[in-house]
Amino acid sequence: MNLKQSADPVQMEARRRVGVAAAALVENGMVVGLGTGSTAACAIAELGRRVREDGLRFIGVPTSWSAAELARQAGLDLRTLNDVDRVDIALDGADEVGPGLALIKGGGAAHTQEKIVATAARRFVVLADDGKLVDVLGVKWAVPVEVLGFALKAVERTLVAMGSVPVLRKGGGKDGPVVTDHGNLVLDAKFESIPDPAALARVLDAIPGVLEHGLFVDLADEALIGSRVDGSVRRIS
Amino acid sequence: MNLKQSADPVQMEARRRVGVAAAALVENGMVVGLGTGSTAACAIAELGRRVREDGLRFIGVPTSWSAAELARQAGLDLRTLNDVDRVDIALDGADEVGPGLALIKGGGAAHTQEKIVATAARRFVVLADDGKLVDVLGVKWAVPVEVLGFALKAVERTLVAMGSVPVLRKGGGKDGPVVTDHGNLVLDAKFESIPDPAALARVLDAIPGVLEHGLFVDLADEALIGSRVDGSVRRIS
Repeated sequence: MNLKQSADPVQMEARRRVGVAAAALVENGMVVGLGTGSTAACAIAELGRRVREDGLRFIGVPTSWSAAELARQAGLDLRTLNDVDRVDIALDGADEVGPGLALIKGGGAAHTQEKIVATAARRFVVLADDGKLVDVLGVKWAVPVEVLGFALKAVERTLVAMGSVPVLRKGGGKDGPVVTDHGNLVLDAKFESIPDPAALARVLDAIPGVLEHGLFVDLADEALIGSRVDGSVRRIS
Repeated sequence: MNLKQSADPVQMEARRRVGVAAAALVENGMVVGLGTGSTAACAIAELGRRVREDGLRFIGVPTSWSAAELARQAGLDLRTLNDVDRVDIALDGADEVGPGLALIKGGGAAHTQEKIVATAARRFVVLADDGKLVDVLGVKWAVPVEVLGFALKAVERTLVAMGSVPVLRKGGGKDGPVVTDHGNLVLDAKFESIPDPAALARVLDAIPGVLEHGLFVDLADEALIGSRVDGSVRRIS
């Protein structure tokens, strides 16, 4: 559940074009939140090209070890969120994009930092191919919930009582569960569907031991959506 | 701000008696949340005496390295919260006890685990001397907010925008700020006063990068309050 599948060539081309469109929003002198995942990676790559070829100058704030490493490879100038006084724009992907630009994020287990940066940003642009668009959130995807190991079983029981099926996320390269960049665990909580993401977000926010969950409500200002049919990019706000 | 002062002998005697009264609530076979701080320490000491002298048998779930160490010294049988299927009762102190048994906790920087255990407990009994009783929370004490280092400055700005004065907690035994048992930082956010703790708690819960804050609302079922005048212990519920 919530395991990322490799994108096919058509999807990757849609994401690449979205990344190019997203990078075009960045202007000299900006502070830019750099998201995690394959679509954000396309934006980071294009930003690197603009730095090298067009002389663009800006400061990037990465949302994960993964984003930071890609950004370093792309030659971007990086700061931590603590070392900037503002974030002008955040560019990040999503796992599902629902009505009102409510999102499910966290397939990359970086949603805690991503939400911190998106919240700090004056403008948050979500990047996706049109396969991510849904009428109702949560029908296909589970909500990733970053949890203190101390509270694992207690939070698991609470999520079950809320009617979801939580699964401790496993990964690769180590035995046992995925450990996040902050040293915590991830429960992927599958609900039947999420008709009211704001209400669910409030309940999840209030659970002690939950660091952050993957529901992003009232955060995205606009979306750049790439068509898997013709590669065109449209803007939703 | 929020630096614990050493209790005077009268205070310590009041806390000792509260600890004895709290330990008397524990019965054979119970699972007991063990709080952090000087008053909870009195309960842990008395529980150790009851184990040694009265043959009491129960399982303790500590809320901090500090509580675990005291409990081991007292000879208690310990489990992690993940290894019990319930918590029958949690015994813990507070820094301020307000109307409706709303609390400020976290002077010992253990409020995240304390809140997880208190929430998991069927019955949460707060232990305090009557110097902790206040008509309105937050006039004297700041609200401890455990924060991911990644989000420090962003959360600080948010807390300032909310009208509080946040101070990064410093400690001893290491340079720089206090680091919690979970590797995070603590901002002590002083508000002018907190007339509506539930409303403030909801706002703090929703700030990304905030792990947990020290406002405990609708969690305490009863309080054992020790008089600093005559040492008597009264029960509020």
